[in-house]
Amino acid sequence: MPPSSTKNSQVDVLIIGAGPSGLMAGNALAKAGINVRLVDIKPVPVLVGQADGIQPRTLEVLQSYGLAQRVLAEGFQMRIATFFEPSPSGGLELKDIVPDVRIPALATHYPYEFLLHQGGIEAIFLDSMKTVGVEVERPIEPTSIQLTTNDPEVLKDPTSHPVRVTLKNLNAPDEPEEVVHAKFVLGSDGAHSWVRKALDITMIGDQTDSVWGVIDIVPVTDFPYIRCKAVIPANSGTVINIPREGDKTRLYVQMKEKAGIDEGTGRLDKNKLGPDDILNVVKESFHPYSLKAAEECEWWTIYRVGQRVAEKFTINERIFISGDACHTHSPKAGQGMNASMNDTHNLAWKLAHVLRGWADISLLKTYEIERRKYAEDLINFDKEFAPVFAKKAVSHEEVKKTFEKFGGMTSGIGIQYPPCAIVDAENQHYAKNLVVGKRVPPQTIVRSADGRPFEVQELLFADTRFKLLIFTGDVLVPEQMKKARKVADELLTEGKGLSKFVPPGKDLSAVFDVLTISKTKLKMMFSVVNDLPKALNSHWTKVFVDDKDILELYGGNAYNNYEVDPAGVVVVVRPDGYVGKIAPFDSLDDLDSYFASFLKVSS
Amino acid sequence: MPPSSTKNSQVDVLIIGAGPSGLMAGNALAKAGINVRLVDIKPVPVLVGQADGIQPRTLEVLQSYGLAQRVLAEGFQMRIATFFEPSPSGGLELKDIVPDVRIPALATHYPYEFLLHQGGIEAIFLDSMKTVGVEVERPIEPTSIQLTTNDPEVLKDPTSHPVRVTLKNLNAPDEPEEVVHAKFVLGSDGAHSWVRKALDITMIGDQTDSVWGVIDIVPVTDFPYIRCKAVIPANSGTVINIPREGDKTRLYVQMKEKAGIDEGTGRLDKNKLGPDDILNVVKESFHPYSLKAAEECEWWTIYRVGQRVAEKFTINERIFISGDACHTHSPKAGQGMNASMNDTHNLAWKLAHVLRGWADISLLKTYEIERRKYAEDLINFDKEFAPVFAKKAVSHEEVKKTFEKFGGMTSGIGIQYPPCAIVDAENQHYAKNLVVGKRVPPQTIVRSADGRPFEVQELLFADTRFKLLIFTGDVLVPEQMKKARKVADELLTEGKGLSKFVPPGKDLSAVFDVLTISKTKLKMMFSVVNDLPKALNSHWTKVFVDDKDILELYGGNAYNNYEVDPAGVVVVVRPDGYVGKIAPFDSLDDLDSYFASFLKVSS
Repeated sequence: MPPSSTKNSQVDVLIIGAGPSGLMAGNALAKAGINVRLVDIKPVPVLVGQADGIQPRTLEVLQSYGLAQRVLAEGFQMRIATFFEPSPSGGLELKDIVPDVRIPALATHYPYEFLLHQGGIEAIFLDSMKTVGVEVERPIEPTSIQLTTNDPEVLKDPTSHPVRVTLKNLNAPDEPEEVVHAKFVLGSDGAHSWVRKALDITMIGDQTDSVWGVIDIVPVTDFPYIRCKAVIPANSGTVINIPREGDKTRLYVQMKEKAGIDEGTGRLDKNKLGPDDILNVVKESFHPYSLKAAEECEWWTIYRVGQRVAEKFTINERIFISGDACHTHSPKAGQGMNASMNDTHNLAWKLAHVLRGWADISLLKTYEIERRKYAEDLINFDKEFAPVFAKKAVSHEEVKKTFEKFGGMTSGIGIQYPPCAIVDAENQHYAKNLVVGKRVPPQTIVRSADGRPFEVQELLFADTRFKLLIFTGDVLVPEQMKKARKVADELLTEGKGLSKFVPPGKDLSAVFDVLTISKTKLKMMFSVVNDLPKALNSHWTKVFVDDKDILELYGGNAYNNYEVDPAGVVVVVRPDGYVGKIAPFDSLDDLDSYFASFLKVSS
Repeated sequence: MPPSSTKNSQVDVLIIGAGPSGLMAGNALAKAGINVRLVDIKPVPVLVGQADGIQPRTLEVLQSYGLAQRVLAEGFQMRIATFFEPSPSGGLELKDIVPDVRIPALATHYPYEFLLHQGGIEAIFLDSMKTVGVEVERPIEPTSIQLTTNDPEVLKDPTSHPVRVTLKNLNAPDEPEEVVHAKFVLGSDGAHSWVRKALDITMIGDQTDSVWGVIDIVPVTDFPYIRCKAVIPANSGTVINIPREGDKTRLYVQMKEKAGIDEGTGRLDKNKLGPDDILNVVKESFHPYSLKAAEECEWWTIYRVGQRVAEKFTINERIFISGDACHTHSPKAGQGMNASMNDTHNLAWKLAHVLRGWADISLLKTYEIERRKYAEDLINFDKEFAPVFAKKAVSHEEVKKTFEKFGGMTSGIGIQYPPCAIVDAENQHYAKNLVVGKRVPPQTIVRSADGRPFEVQELLFADTRFKLLIFTGDVLVPEQMKKARKVADELLTEGKGLSKFVPPGKDLSAVFDVLTISKTKLKMMFSVVNDLPKALNSHWTKVFVDDKDILELYGGNAYNNYEVDPAGVVVVVRPDGYVGKIAPFDSLDDLDSYFASFLKVSS
């Protein structure tokens, strides 16, 4: 083929694989105004089956993108978990009935698990991206990928296009392949990732002999707990019932060890183990309750549990892998899709800052630091969690304890990123319960201008901006008002403080969203709000009080709950909703050095 | 013009006027599958100004159509009301700061007022109707309307088309007019209703000499209460500040008596009184706070308050008028758009039942009975309410007391329809706080199959079905289970009880939505749910318990709060969410006679 007919193109970010991980990145980048393309080898999006569990933290993240509403409307809310043991008289005995999410009830606004099939989740992202003109290109097969240079100068320059990817349009096999020159490439193409293999990144860890079957059915049953998570003993191990959207339910079934594995190849053979085999184990385990499928099963699969993490998540911070491409584990705690989406939620804002030239490219190193730590924690959890279900006669107490022990991990709200450039715990004691490296926990505060209560998380939009929560203490006290004015002057005034990190021609608000939270009674705030410096009251929507709303239904106790020092504290929340840094009012320089470690100083 | 070129057409319902009242009807009918057309003389929908206040009850109603979410997202929530008096030292003195909605905090799920311009509300209906293929035809001018027959037999027959309306397409003035033959016509064409005038329906009541100006601006001000309702004395009477969506605010300004009224014609002359005059009164009243408009005012109007109700709301229950076409009053309590939408919310389900042949046409008489009573209450309220603001030096105590006195009226949640065919209070004492003629008050109950808490109102969809709330008492008690089985057998079994009202070929669920509410603990319900008769457990989503959810956050006390007799009670909720009838388990015949008074018995 003559080279003249080859199509060459440039893009800032090319995303290979449009599952939940790729779509989270694509949507975040597209909404941030980044030039992004998504390609997928599949001709159509996922319609049935696949992943389905959305953890509380993931729902919070979706909320920060304005996408939670549809999950709330379309997903099933799994609130109850039930545990069974064989009854001495034969059959099943209910041993316990508890909340499904094993964390304190008020630790999240969404204290339950959402079930919605992967296609439903993907559709939410696809529709959102469409509003800014970005769509997934299909069916596109990547045929080669390479980082074209080792030159550190080129690699450090965020305007260079050092990654070369060739793409083949499977709908037009006679057309020449397209050569894409990308600044960055993200491989989010699943457990069998082509990107990972093409780059020779190996997976570290083990394949187990544990074989599971999964089947989606509309059940016809007299089992009254069918709309609850139900952990049921079976001869081969455990059956877990997970109700889904509509009338569907998903059954995870531990099969006999090595069942379906071809002795010759050592691989699972779908011809040897089918939906009837899976359903037969279920039926046996449900006895004396009856269960059958109302119609043919919608989707099923069998898999052998692997517990592996990629040896690296990136090639020179120019090519990244995410989601199942970098970690696989058992699906029993419903973590897969959540881990995948949260990988790229972590990465997207960093890419946006680097591409805009606002952050140093080294910021991208924190992706692997943070997400590898999480992936390893997840595998370690899985190694402890999965075997509990593999036993023939597991006690419900053991299962329940395992669920409880890992509530923070499985709900996602306990995840804590390790210290790194963007996680600096130095002043933790000034706001003990805004834990650096963790997401901001729920707390209702009240907007002073109109008295409307807000969950703090509702204010932390994933809009690539750093949120500065300015806890002023009580500005009714002249001393605190004076300090607040000083903070505004030293930190937020043009030519001083953080303004050095603001690109020329931009306002401070392009990089920093300043939210003032005063320990003042709502009704009293009106009398002093005009005295607040403009930087702490840039708009009436930016000032809040730590008090109850006018009907005394919601709010109050924010300073106490967060254990914030009422003498005045600035809390930096990263664009992804995680606490990055805390600085007391008398040590504002700490903020300067925090941001200077990864943001560029504008000239 | 030769008659051959005249276009003739038939329609079930023709709606003239696509404001909030017409659109509420159009959307409800379209969603119910009724053949409906909407025409409006204006070439484009309202874009700015006009009505803007949405009361708590109206939001509940929008929720019942699945349309509340957008109002919640787009509208401003006015939560705080402030009252001022002249300060002895000159200027303004804050006298009180209270919740804007003057009803108990938990009396509605939405204890505040929503502000969203009329065009925003209309867009919500327009988008909703579009999903079922119905759009408003514009600019269409109706030129004649007549009821073509007095024959009672024809008028009683819901399949006849006795109303003849001619329509002129203003975009095609040379085309012949269209002659529409409609089963029913709704005139929702505003205060100057062409339909009302064409039918010689007179307005009864008075025009006052009170002249008000209204202006929408983006304010630039140091008045800290600008995002609250603020009632401020002015030389001419009162200024009321009503914050709006975005940064906008609306100011209602009492002008000098007879200001702008042309002495010759006695009519208001917009050349004599303009936005500057209105804004000048505002500025004076705001002193010592400054206030100016950031840009030119978006919308303004002046009007003379009329307090009038149409002498009749219908011509032979074949032509109806609704909204401003049948009642006008002062806009100060923000009732106009709410009254208008609730008129047609009341009418739409009745039209649907009659058009389907399920209800006797006499059901339509209840529209005027119910909505005239409400309109008259509204005018009487307005007569007491409006003058309070007309005084030069009204005390804030008097204003506040007036707001409090009419909290049920202005919030909409206190509205009670009088006894009529569909409002039968006979057995009220079996469920004292489910007041017959009033809407169902908030109460959280828990779905037994999955433990999900629901606000009862969330279950009362405006889907034209009657909701039967079956309060079974505690079905863990064998006696109550026995009674529940008897109710299912006598009331809900094919060939018995209410099945006589079900049209041939339809299920009971086409007409009645049966919701079971047991006074049983959530965790215990699993053990007896399989014993419930099928009619009380037609699907897992239909059974609820009066208990807290699994996290013990929400729910419980439904029987106590509603004062429901735990011996067993059936409560009929009408399709519009109002309680229609109560029957204890031992007097189910009462339900038969209730429904027989307006539903047809299928042969």
